[in-house]
Amino acid sequence: MTQRTPAPFTVLAQDGAARRGRLETAHGVVDTPAFVAVATQGAVKGVEPRGVAESGTQLLFANTYHMYLRPGAEVVAQHGGLHRFMQWDRPILTDSGGFQVFSLGAGIEHGVGKVASMFPGEESTSPTARPGQGLVKVEEDRVVFTSHVDGSRHEFTPEVSMEIQRALGADVVIAFDECTSPLHDERYTRESAERTHRWADRSLRAFHALGARHDYEQVLYGVVQGGAFESVRRDSARVIGGMGFGGMAIGGNLGETHEAMYRVLDWTVPELPDALPRHLLGIADVPSVFEAVARGVDTFDSVAPTRNARNGGVLARFGDDGEPLANFRLNLRNAKYAGDLRPIDASCDCETCQSYSRSYLRHLLKANEQLGQRLATVHNLRFMARLMEEIRGAIEAGRFDALMHDWLDPVRKTARQKGADAEAS
Amino acid sequence: MTQRTPAPFTVLAQDGAARRGRLETAHGVVDTPAFVAVATQGAVKGVEPRGVAESGTQLLFANTYHMYLRPGAEVVAQHGGLHRFMQWDRPILTDSGGFQVFSLGAGIEHGVGKVASMFPGEESTSPTARPGQGLVKVEEDRVVFTSHVDGSRHEFTPEVSMEIQRALGADVVIAFDECTSPLHDERYTRESAERTHRWADRSLRAFHALGARHDYEQVLYGVVQGGAFESVRRDSARVIGGMGFGGMAIGGNLGETHEAMYRVLDWTVPELPDALPRHLLGIADVPSVFEAVARGVDTFDSVAPTRNARNGGVLARFGDDGEPLANFRLNLRNAKYAGDLRPIDASCDCETCQSYSRSYLRHLLKANEQLGQRLATVHNLRFMARLMEEIRGAIEAGRFDALMHDWLDPVRKTARQKGADAEAS
Repeated sequence: MTQRTPAPFTVLAQDGAARRGRLETAHGVVDTPAFVAVATQGAVKGVEPRGVAESGTQLLFANTYHMYLRPGAEVVAQHGGLHRFMQWDRPILTDSGGFQVFSLGAGIEHGVGKVASMFPGEESTSPTARPGQGLVKVEEDRVVFTSHVDGSRHEFTPEVSMEIQRALGADVVIAFDECTSPLHDERYTRESAERTHRWADRSLRAFHALGARHDYEQVLYGVVQGGAFESVRRDSARVIGGMGFGGMAIGGNLGETHEAMYRVLDWTVPELPDALPRHLLGIADVPSVFEAVARGVDTFDSVAPTRNARNGGVLARFGDDGEPLANFRLNLRNAKYAGDLRPIDASCDCETCQSYSRSYLRHLLKANEQLGQRLATVHNLRFMARLMEEIRGAIEAGRFDALMHDWLDPVRKTARQKGADAEAS
Repeated sequence: MTQRTPAPFTVLAQDGAARRGRLETAHGVVDTPAFVAVATQGAVKGVEPRGVAESGTQLLFANTYHMYLRPGAEVVAQHGGLHRFMQWDRPILTDSGGFQVFSLGAGIEHGVGKVASMFPGEESTSPTARPGQGLVKVEEDRVVFTSHVDGSRHEFTPEVSMEIQRALGADVVIAFDECTSPLHDERYTRESAERTHRWADRSLRAFHALGARHDYEQVLYGVVQGGAFESVRRDSARVIGGMGFGGMAIGGNLGETHEAMYRVLDWTVPELPDALPRHLLGIADVPSVFEAVARGVDTFDSVAPTRNARNGGVLARFGDDGEPLANFRLNLRNAKYAGDLRPIDASCDCETCQSYSRSYLRHLLKANEQLGQRLATVHNLRFMARLMEEIRGAIEAGRFDALMHDWLDPVRKTARQKGADAEAS
């Protein structure tokens, strides 16, 4: 029984603040920067583990809250943990369950989802939100909430979160936190962050106390909160960074625009220990990935690549006319693909692009055939894996900044041009 | 450009009336008796072609009506046919579209689906049926119908059906027919069968006339109709059997019970040419497969194994207590599987049974994760493939009858016992 704190993380190369790293886990190495695909309920929606692995996905993200409610942590533990339950033998990360404090509580009361929902390419991860119908109560020592599955009442504490995550057996686990809303003011956000710090301390103690309970090798990350308020973010980063966690997660409200999020990262990352891996929670659109890597973030999770795929939004850099796509997506449901015999992307080596036409994929999506969602998802996972490979190569070669400009400048030019056109008209 | 009539079909061994055969196609050999998995819209629901192939599935069944309406036969033809469209390089069979005459027309007016829906383990294949709202009009020379996709009006004739199936490029195609309902009387059933015979003649002529249009090697099967009326069935079998088709399909209303269907087969099969392969349309529950093979049927299609899988009904011979299952199914959604770490069937070599617990499968199905439906489908396809392998082996060894008794006697005993218990109570 080993407890590795801090995480066995090595920065292999640095290019500005961008880092090319390696995270070692009991289930293999994660080369960073890396995209973490989301398997909320213990499955990447519609794709069997072999297909996920073949896409080059290194790491999966499962939700503690969901797995706790259904099938229950004890069922997963009976299998010997999530890896064996879901037959994924590469690294897994579980969250703390704390995000649900937001998405089932304040998120519903405020009628907003995660801030990411305001970004292009991202969507709200909050469940069926009905303003005013909060299902959660945050207290100093615990969170009481109502299950979205069957309406039963439950209670999470840092200790409970650690116990569940210990039972689930992910390689990377996350301290229990409260995730604030963009509508919370600075005073509440600071109070909440300070409570999260106290919960972080309890999480660390509980994590160590539980060490002997299951024979899993795990690393515990702390979560930096603080909303879009500079002093709260900086304080939270310093406090969480100094507590002895094995890694750092950046969570909560990151502001209402991409630029606001970049500012949050500008405040946060410099306060974090250099030696620890840094995970950005819930954000992985292409511009954000580049800008966050540029600021020293190592890993990213987001439901967007897989969720968009299921709606026919497949990731691509260039459109039919060879012009860069501002949102890095084609909508395969578009009628113009009905007879299009080309793959999504002729330069892509994924299973989908190697075999299937846009026409076939559109047909499946229009006909509500699950296979269409699977094939689109496989492509998007591969797109993200290739993007991260390209980013890692650029950092190693000391040309990350050039790669970022190469990807983002044309898109920003397009956005500016559209703005100018709009003003001129 | 070759037109092979009759089909290159060889009976390798015979055991009673049961035949162990080999059907040669441009996309490989089908060992018979064989189960044909259904890919209505050009995809086995939820399973990528590799997974289908690995299950041992030899042959897929795609629906002409569905492919014609969406994406359109011309789109499939642009790809070079169904095989390339859907990336399935093994044999494919398409139906005539005529079944939709029933399932969208009389089936709706009479408020019944295909007769198979009355059998345990089978479900109606008719679309959202609203009695009295017939969408189809059968005339001597054509069928006019309304698309279930967009309400547009269409017309099928034998010539149109052949043209569409030629464009789709399946290895086995089927003559245009009308499928009668159990509620049609003998007089209508006879009139309809005679019309189907005239359509069969037109289908044959059109098939040969279209030979040069596409470079596909295809075999055309005729369809025997006649409902559950002995003289109509016998007449239809003799007429269709003598027309020069490459194979025989047995379709339409097969009676309202298993026993009635066996009688229909008793009347039909002896009238068919021995040299031609025989396909039973839309029926593949375990007892029916045995009884039909015993009467000389070679291939079977049914949506039941794949549709039941998506609802959590996985095929198995024995229950938890080792007792034979009367309906050859476990319902994985049952609460008793929540913590069951065993595979569906420890003796099964499918991808699902090799890796996943009943507990995980139940979790996925309860959580509406598509992967659960995929994994259950893969198992059911493998179950059918293994069943057919076992049947082929038994015919070769001259012990088919023993195998059938071995599978069916305990189940019939159970059914009789239940009946006796019910009477006694």
